[in-house]
Amino acid sequence: MKKADRIYYGGDYNPDQWDDQTIDEDMRLFKKAGINLLTLPVFSWAKLEPDEGVYNFEWLDRIIDKIWENGIHVCLATPTTAQPAWLSTRYPEVLPVDIAGRKRTHGMRVFFCVNSLKYRERAAAIAEQMAMRYAHHPALAMWHVSNEYGTYCYCPTCQAKFRVWLRKRYGTVDELNKRWHTTFWGRIVSSFEEVTLPTELNDDYRFNPAIQLDYMRFVTDSTAECFQNEYDILKKYNPEIPIQTNMSGFIKKLDQFTMTKKLDIVGWDNYPWPDDPAYFVAMKHDIMRGLKGGQSFVLTEQSPNQQNWQPYNLLKRPGEVRRLSYQAMAHGADTCLFFQMRQSVAGQEKFHGAIISHSGREDTRVFRESSVLGAELAHIGDTFLNGRTPARVGILFDWNNWWALELSSGPSKDMDYLKTVSLYYETLYRQNIGVDFLPFEAELEKYDLVIAPMIYMEKNNIGEKLNAYVKNGGTLVTTVMSGLADENDRCVFGAYPGKLKDMLGIWVEETDALRPYEQNHMKIEKADMVSREEYSCDFLCDIIHPEGGAEVLATYEDDFYAGTPCVTCNTFGKGKAYYIGTQPEQKFLEELMEKICKDCNIESVYSADEGVELTVRKSDKGRIVFVINHNSKEAEVDFGTDKLKSLIDERKFTGKNTIQPGDVFVTIVEE
Amino acid sequence: MKKADRIYYGGDYNPDQWDDQTIDEDMRLFKKAGINLLTLPVFSWAKLEPDEGVYNFEWLDRIIDKIWENGIHVCLATPTTAQPAWLSTRYPEVLPVDIAGRKRTHGMRVFFCVNSLKYRERAAAIAEQMAMRYAHHPALAMWHVSNEYGTYCYCPTCQAKFRVWLRKRYGTVDELNKRWHTTFWGRIVSSFEEVTLPTELNDDYRFNPAIQLDYMRFVTDSTAECFQNEYDILKKYNPEIPIQTNMSGFIKKLDQFTMTKKLDIVGWDNYPWPDDPAYFVAMKHDIMRGLKGGQSFVLTEQSPNQQNWQPYNLLKRPGEVRRLSYQAMAHGADTCLFFQMRQSVAGQEKFHGAIISHSGREDTRVFRESSVLGAELAHIGDTFLNGRTPARVGILFDWNNWWALELSSGPSKDMDYLKTVSLYYETLYRQNIGVDFLPFEAELEKYDLVIAPMIYMEKNNIGEKLNAYVKNGGTLVTTVMSGLADENDRCVFGAYPGKLKDMLGIWVEETDALRPYEQNHMKIEKADMVSREEYSCDFLCDIIHPEGGAEVLATYEDDFYAGTPCVTCNTFGKGKAYYIGTQPEQKFLEELMEKICKDCNIESVYSADEGVELTVRKSDKGRIVFVINHNSKEAEVDFGTDKLKSLIDERKFTGKNTIQPGDVFVTIVEE
Amino acid sequence: MKKADRIYYGGDYNPDQWDDQTIDEDMRLFKKAGINLLTLPVFSWAKLEPDEGVYNFEWLDRIIDKIWENGIHVCLATPTTAQPAWLSTRYPEVLPVDIAGRKRTHGMRVFFCVNSLKYRERAAAIAEQMAMRYAHHPALAMWHVSNEYGTYCYCPTCQAKFRVWLRKRYGTVDELNKRWHTTFWGRIVSSFEEVTLPTELNDDYRFNPAIQLDYMRFVTDSTAECFQNEYDILKKYNPEIPIQTNMSGFIKKLDQFTMTKKLDIVGWDNYPWPDDPAYFVAMKHDIMRGLKGGQSFVLTEQSPNQQNWQPYNLLKRPGEVRRLSYQAMAHGADTCLFFQMRQSVAGQEKFHGAIISHSGREDTRVFRESSVLGAELAHIGDTFLNGRTPARVGILFDWNNWWALELSSGPSKDMDYLKTVSLYYETLYRQNIGVDFLPFEAELEKYDLVIAPMIYMEKNNIGEKLNAYVKNGGTLVTTVMSGLADENDRCVFGAYPGKLKDMLGIWVEETDALRPYEQNHMKIEKADMVSREEYSCDFLCDIIHPEGGAEVLATYEDDFYAGTPCVTCNTFGKGKAYYIGTQPEQKFLEELMEKICKDCNIESVYSADEGVELTVRKSDKGRIVFVINHNSKEAEVDFGTDKLKSLIDERKFTGKNTIQPGDVFVTIVEE
Repeated sequence: MKKADRIYYGGDYNPDQWDDQTIDEDMRLFKKAGINLLTLPVFSWAKLEPDEGVYNFEWLDRIIDKIWENGIHVCLATPTTAQPAWLSTRYPEVLPVDIAGRKRTHGMRVFFCVNSLKYRERAAAIAEQMAMRYAHHPALAMWHVSNEYGTYCYCPTCQAKFRVWLRKRYGTVDELNKRWHTTFWGRIVSSFEEVTLPTELNDDYRFNPAIQLDYMRFVTDSTAECFQNEYDILKKYNPEIPIQTNMSGFIKKLDQFTMTKKLDIVGWDNYPWPDDPAYFVAMKHDIMRGLKGGQSFVLTEQSPNQQNWQPYNLLKRPGEVRRLSYQAMAHGADTCLFFQMRQSVAGQEKFHGAIISHSGREDTRVFRESSVLGAELAHIGDTFLNGRTPARVGILFDWNNWWALELSSGPSKDMDYLKTVSLYYETLYRQNIGVDFLPFEAELEKYDLVIAPMIYMEKNNIGEKLNAYVKNGGTLVTTVMSGLADENDRCVFGAYPGKLKDMLGIWVEETDALRPYEQNHMKIEKADMVSREEYSCDFLCDIIHPEGGAEVLATYEDDFYAGTPCVTCNTFGKGKAYYIGTQPEQKFLEELMEKICKDCNIESVYSADEGVELTVRKSDKGRIVFVINHNSKEAEVDFGTDKLKSLIDERKFTGKNTIQPGDVFVTIVEE
Repeated sequence: MKKADRIYYGGDYNPDQWDDQTIDEDMRLFKKAGINLLTLPVFSWAKLEPDEGVYNFEWLDRIIDKIWENGIHVCLATPTTAQPAWLSTRYPEVLPVDIAGRKRTHGMRVFFCVNSLKYRERAAAIAEQMAMRYAHHPALAMWHVSNEYGTYCYCPTCQAKFRVWLRKRYGTVDELNKRWHTTFWGRIVSSFEEVTLPTELNDDYRFNPAIQLDYMRFVTDSTAECFQNEYDILKKYNPEIPIQTNMSGFIKKLDQFTMTKKLDIVGWDNYPWPDDPAYFVAMKHDIMRGLKGGQSFVLTEQSPNQQNWQPYNLLKRPGEVRRLSYQAMAHGADTCLFFQMRQSVAGQEKFHGAIISHSGREDTRVFRESSVLGAELAHIGDTFLNGRTPARVGILFDWNNWWALELSSGPSKDMDYLKTVSLYYETLYRQNIGVDFLPFEAELEKYDLVIAPMIYMEKNNIGEKLNAYVKNGGTLVTTVMSGLADENDRCVFGAYPGKLKDMLGIWVEETDALRPYEQNHMKIEKADMVSREEYSCDFLCDIIHPEGGAEVLATYEDDFYAGTPCVTCNTFGKGKAYYIGTQPEQKFLEELMEKICKDCNIESVYSADEGVELTVRKSDKGRIVFVINHNSKEAEVDFGTDKLKSLIDERKFTGKNTIQPGDVFVTIVEE
Repeated sequence: MKKADRIYYGGDYNPDQWDDQTIDEDMRLFKKAGINLLTLPVFSWAKLEPDEGVYNFEWLDRIIDKIWENGIHVCLATPTTAQPAWLSTRYPEVLPVDIAGRKRTHGMRVFFCVNSLKYRERAAAIAEQMAMRYAHHPALAMWHVSNEYGTYCYCPTCQAKFRVWLRKRYGTVDELNKRWHTTFWGRIVSSFEEVTLPTELNDDYRFNPAIQLDYMRFVTDSTAECFQNEYDILKKYNPEIPIQTNMSGFIKKLDQFTMTKKLDIVGWDNYPWPDDPAYFVAMKHDIMRGLKGGQSFVLTEQSPNQQNWQPYNLLKRPGEVRRLSYQAMAHGADTCLFFQMRQSVAGQEKFHGAIISHSGREDTRVFRESSVLGAELAHIGDTFLNGRTPARVGILFDWNNWWALELSSGPSKDMDYLKTVSLYYETLYRQNIGVDFLPFEAELEKYDLVIAPMIYMEKNNIGEKLNAYVKNGGTLVTTVMSGLADENDRCVFGAYPGKLKDMLGIWVEETDALRPYEQNHMKIEKADMVSREEYSCDFLCDIIHPEGGAEVLATYEDDFYAGTPCVTCNTFGKGKAYYIGTQPEQKFLEELMEKICKDCNIESVYSADEGVELTVRKSDKGRIVFVINHNSKEAEVDFGTDKLKSLIDERKFTGKNTIQPGDVFVTIVEE
C-alpha cells in the first residue's frame, strides 16, 4: 500500500447519485468525522461509458479533485461489477447461464460471465481509461478491482473453456477417466468433448463430486484470470499503487488462497450476523490475514449501522461498530472502511445503514459515533500499520477440502467444515492465544502446535508433511474425517486414516452418524487431562483401533462400540499427535486444548476475565495490544508488570485494570 | 344492477357437464331452495366455439330459456377465462411466459397473456356473440366478464408493451433513470429498449423495487384493458345491464382501485380460511365496499360447504354458511352467490362443496341449510338493496403502498401490510364501529377519524392532504413505516417521516427490527389513556425525537433507546395526530383506539356482548341492523329504547335481547 | 430360476473398477464369506461398447470365467441403466426432458427416455451381444435387466407416443373428453394433437388428475415395453434362464403389477430407513411377493452396512443385517444379495457400506458378520426355496388407486395410501398372521378375510367382486375414501360409497378433514368387541347414515356429528362387511382386527412375546418357521407340542423357548 501516515478511515461513496450541493455538504461532514479515504466509483460503468468506447470522465475528474482538495484520499474502483445495459444487450454472451441452464437477462451486479471475451475486452478498456487518467493522481491510495466476485456460470463459453482446462490438467482422457474414477456409475468419457458441466440438468453438481470439485477449481481460476485482466493494466500505469478486490463474506465459493495470489493486498467485507459470536468474526479476520502469509489486510466494507438484506435488520448497538472496527484492526486490518458513506435513497439497499443517513443530519447517533472513532484513529496514526501477529499455533485451512467434505454424500448431511474449524478456533480464542491460518503449502515448522480439523483431502503432500512435522517434535491435533481422500475425492484404497495412520497410531474402521437428537458419551481414560470423568459427544463417531500403539485418552460409553477409543494420542518421533474421532461437547475441547497449549508452553500475553479479547500486533513502532470487553458488564485485565500506554488518549496502564462494559483499549507497550 | 326485487341467491352452474335429466332435476331443486340466479357459462368457450369463428350456441339458448321458464335469472359470464385448446395450439402467443422465463403450455384457467392481441381478438368475438344473442334476454340480470383475473406474464409481447407504457409514463429515458434512481448499482439505461422485465432471470422482481412496482402497475393496467375489451362490447348491446368480474380473494396482485374503475359493480369471491377471525373477513368485505366509494357489491362466490384446495378442507359447521352470508350482506353485499350449484364429478375441484352434492340428494345437511337461507332471503326481499353503511371512521388503503412495503429489503422480512391494517381494523370491529376503506384520492373531510397504517408511500399528494385534514380539525392515527418514500420508492431525502414530520411533531431517527422472539415494553406516560402502566411491543421500534413538540404518550422501557418515545400525539391546527412508532400488543391498541373514538364521540349503534357483530346499512327502506352472534354460547344485545322488527320472521325487539349461539338477527328499525 | 441348490448369497460387484490383484483378493474373500453369486456388469456399457457398434467384451469374459472358476455363479446385468456418453452426445433424443420442460444433459444413471427408439435400438444391441456370449455360460444363474427403472420423461417423443396411447385407449376424442370430463374448467380437446403432457408448464400434473393418471399408466406401459425390448432378446438365446429387474424401493412411480407381468421373477432393493418399523419392511416384502401371485422373489439389493444417501447414515448395528436378511427370506425372498461387494473409492456412493470396505481388510465387523451369515445360509441349503406363504387374509393393493388418492385435491393434504395400508397391515403383523397382497383382479374367494383400505377407485369390477365375495360368506373390512371414483377419477354420480353402498348398508353424506392437532373420539356401541369404551380418531371423519341397515359399532363423540356412526358392520348374504369411516387410534384397530380374526378363526401359528416376528413358508421340504426377535431383550416363543429343528445349527425346539435379544431361529417342523 502507498505509505499511509494513518489508518484509512472512510468507505464507499457514490457521488453519481448526488447533486453538487449534497456533495459539498458531504465533504464538510466527512472532514468533521475524520474521514480520509473514499472508495469510488464502484457502480458507474454505465455513466463513465454511456456507449461502447464513448467515455464520459469529466464528472469523475471533478469529484476526485474536490475530494483531494478536502484532504481525502481515494480508493479507485474499476466499475466492472455492473456492466452497462448496452453491453448485455449488444453482446448477450456477457450474461451468465445459471445452474438450471437458464440464460440470465440484464440486471443486478456481479452478473456477468468471467470467461466472456467481450466482457474482458470491455472491462480492460474501462480499466485502462481509469489507469491512464488517475494512476498518478495524488489522491490515489489504492485500486479496487470490480466487486465481490463469485458468479458461477454454465454458458457454452464456460463449457468450452472447462474442457480446455481439463485437457491441460489431465493431458489425456484416460488420465481424466482414472482420476475421476468414471467406472463408477458408468461415466467413462471417450473425449474431452463428452464432458458436460455439472448442473441441475444432470445433477452432477451434487452427485458427481469429482467433476464438481474440478468445476469449482476452474471457476476460481477463471475468476482469478478475470481479475488479472484488469490488474495487469492498472499495474502497467503505476506499479506503486497497491491493488485489491473486496471479497464477499460468503467466502466458500472461490478458493481464496488461489484468488489472492494475484492480489497485492487482501480485502474483505465484514457483515456479521446478529448472532455470530465474537470468536467467529475474529476467526474470519484471521483467515483473511492468513491468505497472504500474515500480511495485514484491507477491511473494505462493514456497516456503520443496520444491514437491510438480513431477515431482521437490527440496529447496531451503541459502541458495537467501534468494537467491530477495533477487532478487525486487532486481527490484521490496516483500514476501517464502511459501506456506505451516504445512504442510497432507492434500490435494494435503501434501508442499509450509512454514516450519513437519508436525513442528511449530523446530530444522529451514527454520525456521532463515527466521528468519535475517526478522532481516535487520527490519534493512533500509523502506529500499528503493517504490524504482524506473533502466533505459535497454526490451523490448516483449505478450500478444496471444504468443498469436497460438503459435497460428500454421507456420512451426515450436517457436515460443516467452517463450523468444525471454528469449534477448535474458539478454544484458542477463549484463551487469547494468537492463531495463524495456514494453507496446506505452509511451512509447519514455524509453529509449536498445528491443528488440522477434518483434513479430509490429501493435497500438496500434506500427509507426509504432517508426518515429518510430528516426527521432528511438533504437536498435531487432528480429527474425524481426516486422511480419507485424494485431490480428486478418490478415497484411500487401504485403511483409514490413510497416510496419517502410522503417525496417529490408529486404524479407523467405521464412522457412525448420529442424528441431531442423539448423543454418545466419552469416558476419560487419562487422569488430570480434563476436569470431569465424562463428557458428551455427537455428530460422528469413529470406531477406532489403536493398533499403531496410540494411547487411549477417552472411550465411548454407549452403543455397540462402548469401550472403544474416541480420543487418542500417539508419540511419533519427537512429537505428539492427537486424534479426536468424534465431535465432543465444547467444554471437553476447551479443556483438552488448554492442556495441550500448556504442554507446549503456549499462553496468553496477559490474563483477563472471560469475554475480554486480547490481541497483539507487532509493528516497527512496537508491540500494540488490543483489549476488547465484549461483556455488557465491567471486566478486569491484568497487564502484570508491563507498562502500557493508550494510543487513543493519555491513559497509562500496568497491573490490574478495569475495563468498562463494551469498551476498548488500544495500547502500546512501553519498551 | 337491473332493479332487483330481492337479493340474488344462487351461483355458478355448469350445465354443459350434465345431461337433460340432471338439469331438469336441478331446476326442481333450485326452486325448492329459493335459488333465483345462476351464473353461467364460465368455462364453456371450447364448447361454444369449437373451432375459430365456428359457434355452437343452441345448447346454451335452450338452457337459458329453461332457467328463465323456471323463474330464475342468469348472470351471464363471458367464457374467456379458459381459452379453447385450438386457440393455444394455433396461436401460442396467447400462452403466458412465467416469471422463470418458461413458456407455458395449454392447461388450467386464467392461463393466457392479457396483452395477447390474438387473445383479445377472440375474446371480443365470443363476447360479441353472447351480447348479440342474450343482451336483451329477459333472464339476464348482469354480466360477468371472464374469471379471477390475475396472471402475471413475461412474454415478448408484455416486454414490448411495458416499454411503451414506460415511455408514456416517463416521456424520456432521463426521467426514467431519475425516477428509478438507476445510479444505484449502475442500472442506467440509455434507451427504453434496454429495459428488461423483472423476473427470476435477473432477480429484479425482488431486488429492484422501482421496476417491480412499475411492472405491477403495468400488469394492473393491462388487465384492466383486457377487461374493458369485453366490457365495451357488452355495454354497446345493452347499456342497462350491469357488468362485473369476480375478484379472487388473493387480492394483492392487482390494484383493485384501478381495476374496478372500469366496472359497474365490484364482485368478489370470499373463501375464508378456517382460522380467519371474523373481523378479518369483515375487513375484506369493507375493503371491497370501499373500491367504488361505498357502493354495494356482488358476493360472486363462496362455498356452501368445504373447499378442496386448502391443506385441510374442514366442513362448514351448521349455521356457518348462514353467518358468512349475512356478514357479507351486512358489509355491503347485495347478492349471496355460491360456487357451485352442483358438484363437479371430476377435475381439480371434484371435492369442493356444492348446494347439490355428488349424491344428487335433497336430504343433505347442505341442501337443507341452503333452503332455509333461501326462504329467509325471499322474506327479506329488497329491503336493504343498495343500502349504504354510515361510517365516521376511514382507513386509508393503497395497493402501491402494499406492494412497495413488502418489496422493501429491510427493516424486517415480516412486513405484512394487510395484517397491520387488520390490527387497527380489529380495534374498531370489536367496538362495532363502522369503517370505510379509502383510497389516497378520497375526501378525508367526511370522516371524524382517519387511520393511516403504514402509509409508506407519498402518492396522490397524501402528505399535504393529511396535513390539511388535521389542521382543519380531523383526528389522525398513523404508524411506523409512514412517510418514507415516493411513488417510485425513492426514500425521502431529509428527515423522517417526510411530509408528515411537522404535522406529527416528531423526527424518526432510526428503526430497530426485533426478531420474532424479542420484545420491548412501553411505559405509559399519560394517565387515564389506557388501563395499565405497561404494555409489550415488538416487530419494529422507531427511535423518535419529539422535536416538533409532540406530546409523548408512551416510552420504551428496554434496550439502548429506553426512555425515548414510542407513541406520541401532536396538536396541529384544530386537529390531533397520533403516531404509533412500534407494533404494540393488541390490548394497548384496543384501549387507545377506544379512547380516541370516545374523544371523537364515535360509538357503536348499540351495546352487545363480546363476539357479537353489529352492522348497519341505510337503504331507502330504512335503517337495517344486522346482529351476528359469532360465539358458541348465548349472548346479549341491547337495543335500548329503539324498536326493531325482524326481516326474517315476525319477531320484534327492544331493550335487552338474548341471541342464540351462532344465530343472526336481520332487523329494521321502526321509524 | 435355474434350479439352485442353495440360497444365492452375494450381490453387486463392479470389477471394472479394480485391477487384477484386487480381483484375485476379492475371490479369496468371497469364498471365505460363503458368497455364491455376483451381479455384474451393471454400469459397464461405456466400457463394453466404447463406440457405437464397437464391442470390448474380453475383459468381461475373463472376469466371468474367473468367477466361475472360483465356484461362484453370476447374475448378468444388461448394462443399459447408464448409456455411454457418446450415445447421449450423438443422439440427444435419448436424454429425457424433465417435468419443468428442461432437456437433461448426460449424467447419472436411469437417465434416458424409455421411449427413445435410438435408446431401445442400442440397448437391444448390447443385450444381444451379452446373450450371444453368455446365455449358455455355466456360471449364469439369472439375468438382471438394466437397473431401478422409473424415469418420467416429457420429451416430444413421449408427447407423440402418449397421443397414440390415448387414441388406442379411447378410440375417439369424444370418448376421451367424456372420460376425462373435460367440460370441467373448459378443457375440451378437438383432436388428440391438442393433448399436451401434464407438466409444471401447465400444472396439469397436480391439477388435472385424469390426464396425470393416464400419463402415469402410459409411463408404466412404456417402461414395461422398454424392459421387454431386452427381455425378448435374452429369452430368445436361452429360455431357461430367468429374467428380472431390480425395483427401486420407491415403488410408487410405476404400477408394479403391470411392470412385473413381463418378468420371470420379481426383484427389489430393500433400503429401510433407520426409523422404519419392522412391520413396514415386512409389508414391503409381502407386497413384492404379491406381485406375481405369491411366487418367491429376488432380494436384489440391501446394504451390508450404512447407506450414504440418507441425511444421517447410521451404521447397521451388530446383528441387524442378519435380521433384515432373514426377514426378507421369511417373507418370500429366495436370495440374499447386497449392494455392494467392494466399496467404490469414488463417486456419489463412495461412503456406502460394502462387504469389503476401502480398507480391503477381512478383520472388519462387517466382513465377520457376512461370513457368519454366509455359513448359515450354506447350512440351510435349498430347504425353503420356492416355498409359499400360507395366508388366509388378503389385502387389496393397487397402484392406480394409490396415485388417484394422492392426486386428489382435498379432503386432506395428508392423504397417504401406503401409510393407511400399513396401519391395517400392522394389526395382522402384530398377531403374526400371514397376509397376501392382492391386485384387484385377484380371486378373493381363497381368503377368509379381505381388507380393502381406501379402495377409492372402481376398477376391474372390484365393486361387484367385493359384493359377491361378501354375499358368498366372506368377511370384508373397508374404510373411509372407498367407492368414490371410477378409473378416470370421475366421482360416483349418486350416493357414496357407490357400488359398495348396499353391501355396506350405509350412506356417507360428507367427509370432514381434521387438522393434525385435532381429534374426534369414538364411543363404542357394541360391548365386548374391544377393551375400552372410548378411543380417539383423527385425519378424516365420514358422516354416515346406516340407512342400508348396517349395525353401528361406534359413534363419534364430538363436534356437530356427535352421535352419528363412525364404524359399522353389515350382514350381507352369508358374509359381513365392516366400514371404518375415520382413522381410529391404532389400539382400536388392533383390537378390532384381533376380534375379526378370531371370528374368522384365523390365528398365529404359535404364540410369542411382543416384538417377536413369526413367519411360515411351505416348500417341498416341509414347513419352515422363521422366528425373529426384534427386541433388545430376551423373548419367549411357544411352539406348543410341535417339534422343530434348527436349519442353522443342531438345536431342536418344542414348547416354550427363550430367544436372545435380536436373535433369529430358522427352523423346520419335523413331520
